[in-house]
Amino acid sequence: MVELLSGRSGSMKIKYNLLHQDGKARYGTLETNHGTFETPMFMPVGTQATVKTLDCRELKEINSAVILANTYHLWLRPSEDIVNKAGGLHSFMNYDRPILTDSGGFQVFSLAKPKDITEEGVKFKSHLNGENLFLTPEKSIEIQNKLDSDIAMSFDECIPYPATYEYAKRSTERTLRWAIRGKNAFNNDNQSLFGIVQGGEYEDLRYWSAKELVKLDFDGYSIGGTSVGEDKETMYKMIDYAIKYLPSDKPRYLMGVGDPIDLFEGVMRGVDMFDCVHPTRLARHGHAFTLDGKINMKNAKYKEDFTSIDSECDCYCCKNYTKAYIRHLIVANETLGQRLLSIHNLRFLIKIMENIRKSIQNDRFLEYKGEFMNRYKIK
Amino acid sequence: MVELLSGRSGSMKIKYNLLHQDGKARYGTLETNHGTFETPMFMPVGTQATVKTLDCRELKEINSAVILANTYHLWLRPSEDIVNKAGGLHSFMNYDRPILTDSGGFQVFSLAKPKDITEEGVKFKSHLNGENLFLTPEKSIEIQNKLDSDIAMSFDECIPYPATYEYAKRSTERTLRWAIRGKNAFNNDNQSLFGIVQGGEYEDLRYWSAKELVKLDFDGYSIGGTSVGEDKETMYKMIDYAIKYLPSDKPRYLMGVGDPIDLFEGVMRGVDMFDCVHPTRLARHGHAFTLDGKINMKNAKYKEDFTSIDSECDCYCCKNYTKAYIRHLIVANETLGQRLLSIHNLRFLIKIMENIRKSIQNDRFLEYKGEFMNRYKIK
Repeated sequence: MVELLSGRSGSMKIKYNLLHQDGKARYGTLETNHGTFETPMFMPVGTQATVKTLDCRELKEINSAVILANTYHLWLRPSEDIVNKAGGLHSFMNYDRPILTDSGGFQVFSLAKPKDITEEGVKFKSHLNGENLFLTPEKSIEIQNKLDSDIAMSFDECIPYPATYEYAKRSTERTLRWAIRGKNAFNNDNQSLFGIVQGGEYEDLRYWSAKELVKLDFDGYSIGGTSVGEDKETMYKMIDYAIKYLPSDKPRYLMGVGDPIDLFEGVMRGVDMFDCVHPTRLARHGHAFTLDGKINMKNAKYKEDFTSIDSECDCYCCKNYTKAYIRHLIVANETLGQRLLSIHNLRFLIKIMENIRKSIQNDRFLEYKGEFMNRYKIK
Repeated sequence: MVELLSGRSGSMKIKYNLLHQDGKARYGTLETNHGTFETPMFMPVGTQATVKTLDCRELKEINSAVILANTYHLWLRPSEDIVNKAGGLHSFMNYDRPILTDSGGFQVFSLAKPKDITEEGVKFKSHLNGENLFLTPEKSIEIQNKLDSDIAMSFDECIPYPATYEYAKRSTERTLRWAIRGKNAFNNDNQSLFGIVQGGEYEDLRYWSAKELVKLDFDGYSIGGTSVGEDKETMYKMIDYAIKYLPSDKPRYLMGVGDPIDLFEGVMRGVDMFDCVHPTRLARHGHAFTLDGKINMKNAKYKEDFTSIDSECDCYCCKNYTKAYIRHLIVANETLGQRLLSIHNLRFLIKIMENIRKSIQNDRFLEYKGEFMNRYKIK
């Protein structure tokens, strides 16, 4: 397992160091208030201040660096004020490595319907109790400032895909105005702020969004929108467009993407950070990543399979438990099964990122990508 | 945390060593194929070859010694043959300390209705899929032999409470015949077999049951029946009756009892082993043991309580997490909350047993019992 480069650093904002490039693929380090970590990296998602089924010790064991928490969920429950009184998210959830919070925008647009978008912000109903809520760029930043994550996101509209050019343009322009308002409201010296490149599926809007954000000099840049994560070809083009005008000395974060193949495609295009609920959600449904593709642990053929999920994997699950036992736990609806698969699936992606980093440093990223792709079957 | 006395011993059957008595309270050791452990002890329940929400590393961290697994559940799923092919329960679930299996009797009588009891055995329907099943003393032993636990139980009828004298007598006599049949069918040199004292709520039947079982020279003796676990006064009397004629050189196991106060009452009467689903079930419902009684973590008063559940507790939960965070997890239905509370509740009982053992060794058991009772509020 790769060692972390260092512990808590003295800097207040994050600092990205580009150390090596292989094509557009970047190897670097990210200095944060909670240690320095290597990129490209995959970030597990801890929606409600917990990466579902795991604890922080297990996260460290799989070599997790930055994790993501959801502003929308934590705003609703337990509330940013309670987290703040606990001493911030790190203290609240007992995780001493970096935490990134999203803006709440994605959840507002996906979970909380109906919604009413105005220049001021978004009116919507809580998915928990139907309560009327109003989220603005300033409010999103205020919540994140209180959550005290290491990295906060600008409030944005996650443009639906497909969207008309007219809609995408209007939304992207408004998202930029929201980014400016959020930046002006920002008030936490220990926290960094990312701008989010939107623009829907339109090349010129992606360029425009990126260039305008860069003028505002954010600490890093995210690539967002539903056109990222729908069909693969569109996603890859959007990454190319979004990244073209981003500065090389700031980290780039592709939001909500974590399919193994997309990690390679993203890194190839210059992405440094990824997150996705996919590996833990798959785990809870009994699926496991392997180098030969995803497998469904409920399959009867594993009933008497007393080998580990992946003999080469160094995770706690693979070192200690057999497919037959994990199948039994999943079929019997025992949460330990979901936990063991979550550990494995996250470790699988984090291990890929470790290998990717090594391959970039050795100028053989495309070779490693080819080896992986040849074996991994999309299921 | 108390260290285990030793690792795997050479003996094939368990051996109980009575080392000190304080009144009827016994301090001793239990030598097993998977190490030697101190008694009195509390055994966590791992119904489906997993102590719900926990893994084996966590069990060791709370100083768990023997754990219990349920024959009925494992027979139905994944089946004793699969566990046997895995190399037995220890290997299947990756637990290298002793495992005790029950006979399936209790589950047949509680979960699987309707039932049809004959001299031969019990006909009933699976609680999973309604399949017609037939469990006999021989079959229960055969399953347990294959599961390869360290300690197996004789198949018994768990007499309802209340029961008429006539019913209790007939059932107790049949349970003895079943014990004999099970003993004759027993075929595992690495496993020990306990007889179960029944007799319902009737003093003379308890005496009779115990005396007859002792003639058969079991490796240990359990105290069973629904009259154990219903009203406290009856339970305590039944323990006294059942134990009166049990030999001092064999362990006594009070089945299905794990309320903190009952641990003290049982030990006071000479019980060495206890098990109960109570601590883990309470945990899954958001309740935690404290020295001042049980608390409900959903209570709003814990919203901003940034202290641990018990400042004196040495468990992973209390050392790392606050009430506010655990409350959040429980309210948000995150399984980590159930896990942390399961760790705490089990450690709470296991710690009580550690203290009880010390108090017996120091001839101050009743004093410690008094201190505990004075503080612990029954809720």
